[in-house]
Amino acid sequence: MKNISILVAGAGRSSYSLINYLLKVCTEKNWELLVGDIAIEAAAEKCKDHACARALLFDISNKQSASKIVHEVDLVISLLPANLHPLIAEICIEARTHLLTASYVSNDMQQYHEEAEKNNLIFLNECGFDPGIDHMSAMEIIHKLRAEGSELISFESFAGGLISPDTEKDNPWKYKFTWSPRNVVMAGQGTARYIHGGKLKFISYPQLFKRVTGVTVPGYGEFEGYANRDSTIYKELYGLNEIHTLLRGTLRKAGFCSAWNVFVQLGMTDDSWKMKNLDNATHVDFLKSFLAFDDNLSIEKKISDNLGINENGEEMEKLRWSGLFDNTMIGLKEGSPAEILQHILLKKWNMQSGDKDMVVMYHRFVYKKDGKEYTLQSTLVSEGENEVSTAMAKTVGLPLGIAAKLILENKIQARGVVIPVTEEFYTPILAELQTLGICISEKQI
Amino acid sequence: MKNISILVAGAGRSSYSLINYLLKVCTEKNWELLVGDIAIEAAAEKCKDHACARALLFDISNKQSASKIVHEVDLVISLLPANLHPLIAEICIEARTHLLTASYVSNDMQQYHEEAEKNNLIFLNECGFDPGIDHMSAMEIIHKLRAEGSELISFESFAGGLISPDTEKDNPWKYKFTWSPRNVVMAGQGTARYIHGGKLKFISYPQLFKRVTGVTVPGYGEFEGYANRDSTIYKELYGLNEIHTLLRGTLRKAGFCSAWNVFVQLGMTDDSWKMKNLDNATHVDFLKSFLAFDDNLSIEKKISDNLGINENGEEMEKLRWSGLFDNTMIGLKEGSPAEILQHILLKKWNMQSGDKDMVVMYHRFVYKKDGKEYTLQSTLVSEGENEVSTAMAKTVGLPLGIAAKLILENKIQARGVVIPVTEEFYTPILAELQTLGICISEKQI
Repeated sequence: MKNISILVAGAGRSSYSLINYLLKVCTEKNWELLVGDIAIEAAAEKCKDHACARALLFDISNKQSASKIVHEVDLVISLLPANLHPLIAEICIEARTHLLTASYVSNDMQQYHEEAEKNNLIFLNECGFDPGIDHMSAMEIIHKLRAEGSELISFESFAGGLISPDTEKDNPWKYKFTWSPRNVVMAGQGTARYIHGGKLKFISYPQLFKRVTGVTVPGYGEFEGYANRDSTIYKELYGLNEIHTLLRGTLRKAGFCSAWNVFVQLGMTDDSWKMKNLDNATHVDFLKSFLAFDDNLSIEKKISDNLGINENGEEMEKLRWSGLFDNTMIGLKEGSPAEILQHILLKKWNMQSGDKDMVVMYHRFVYKKDGKEYTLQSTLVSEGENEVSTAMAKTVGLPLGIAAKLILENKIQARGVVIPVTEEFYTPILAELQTLGICISEKQI
Repeated sequence: MKNISILVAGAGRSSYSLINYLLKVCTEKNWELLVGDIAIEAAAEKCKDHACARALLFDISNKQSASKIVHEVDLVISLLPANLHPLIAEICIEARTHLLTASYVSNDMQQYHEEAEKNNLIFLNECGFDPGIDHMSAMEIIHKLRAEGSELISFESFAGGLISPDTEKDNPWKYKFTWSPRNVVMAGQGTARYIHGGKLKFISYPQLFKRVTGVTVPGYGEFEGYANRDSTIYKELYGLNEIHTLLRGTLRKAGFCSAWNVFVQLGMTDDSWKMKNLDNATHVDFLKSFLAFDDNLSIEKKISDNLGINENGEEMEKLRWSGLFDNTMIGLKEGSPAEILQHILLKKWNMQSGDKDMVVMYHRFVYKKDGKEYTLQSTLVSEGENEVSTAMAKTVGLPLGIAAKLILENKIQARGVVIPVTEEFYTPILAELQTLGICISEKQI
């Protein structure tokens, strides 16, 4: 048995870069890597006969067996669905094992704070791309601006999982599903809240995809961001008590949101009820069912009248490209509008062989120094290499891997349930990410 | 003890006309009327020292005492909140007592069908105004058209609780809260479904107040109807299997919906989250929190840009009249947007002394006879006399009262959980309503 041992729980597609990174680290340091999954073949494939790696069956629903494995290791990185993290956390407390995730800290996770601290353990969450790299790159700049005596006035931050310019061609949305399609379809339901001009601001779901913020990413053109659910919590998390404007959002290529807004306005993203008897229904039947009946008007005209958009405009082109006007069978017997929309969109929006993804992060800071106002932007763009080594897998997995290494090297002092917003995280992690090709560039604008 | 006895459960404002009607009937027939309420004074006030009437404490949360009272009577009319009806139903089964309500048949109520039938009891629901008179007047016409060999193509039906033309003056909405304010603010959330051109149609909440149907009521001008939650169930309830178009909706004066749509679009009717720390917030602060920040634009311009409405148009006048632009303190510490909106609107939309309400019902039938197409409209308008004898109290209470009389006279054969859609209900009830001044007029258009 090696003296130090790491478990990666979950060996799905998103684990590729993390496991590759850890294989190198473990080889170099003579550590052991366990890769566990409910599909042991997926775990075995990722281990690639490395001497330091071992694939095993890891089933969190079988607590006894999962606990036995966790007891063998010093640190667990969970790539399981976020709702399973509290189960792992409980086992990690019992086994006195550190825990890392790329997920938001849930209330259930937060409850382990004191126990983890008492046991000298770190439960590090939000250490992927978004959340993760966004926290670290923002805090590095915020601390730097503070140190030089600047006063921060505004902080806007956007991130998104998109497709690379190569893959964008002929795709008018410049978008495909590179992550959970369901999360994309459901995004933004509820009311978003942020701070502007020192006031709390609210954006309703029907307004969300209209009230977008334009963003230019050097070398990659025009983007637009729509607000995330709750930006206001970052005032405290980032220590920005005096900030006038604070907005976090999701990034899409320019033009995406006004077309997506058609789905929102018509009710096609509603997940609260089921449409039935769809055996003979086509894509265009689905679309028409959300429009008023009028034999004398074309579908385009009805959408255009309803939503005040151009009958021959870009929104209509995007709907047409995605097959909404097609007489193709849907291929579902029943489903919520959101489920049916997702099913139809997947026919065109699924990543194909040869497609490459891309992640983009964009921060914009406005600050005052010596009575003058400045604007600083910070951007990260990472393109995927292929379908396996995706930008998403890299930018989510590498921060986790680097953090794991730092913790096991005793270079991190924090204990309890934490997120990476302090210097001991962002300095070494961002520096190593840069050596791995994930670079953040800053620019005064 | 009288040989026949009726209990009215709930002696709130809406009970006025029902109790008055029953006092006359009981006096005439030497029946007994019990009026029960958790506030016994309210019950006593309604009984007015009539020899045949007795006020008592009726508290449904005390099952033993409630049951004792129900055991004394032959028939219960429940004006309690709809969610309490299953509790009453259970007691009525035990006490072998008929039950009448003006509420929609809930699943919980439906479950008493077989037991009521087995015990030779009628549990008559949806026997008020809407639902109630709308069912009866629609079925009378549908059966008449069928009998004369017509084929029904389209049926649209709208009803609404409004204010009388006298009370409308200077009120640009031509609307006040005459019934539950909360129900008005929350109305339409979710997706509405109806049938048009033989196809299922869906209207999302953001579209609901845009996709209205215009309606002219002779002598009362222009109205507009927005779709109710689910019109499709009336296909089976009314036996309209071959119908092309079937839509039920809520009626407002023309112009109401496009102004109400501002609240919907901005998220001000959302009840899913709480706004806090409102101690120093004004009406206009509430409005502004839902608008983008821009020092250079007026509030009107921001609303107009967001929603594509005229900056100086009627919608804006309605918002201004309702105090949304005022620097008045809201007067709540916290609340959901819907609760705050209701609180602000109540300041202007509450019925004042001297105000009169009005209820309107409108059916439009399109049918074919001998190869020709005809359109028939059927309207009911009833204005309130004063704040006590309201149109709503009359049109909800009188059908219940008449039905109770018919049942106790053994003129109704139906048993089990039923709604008044058959001839034995609509013929005598509509006839007697006419003698009481509630008249339905038909017109070919």
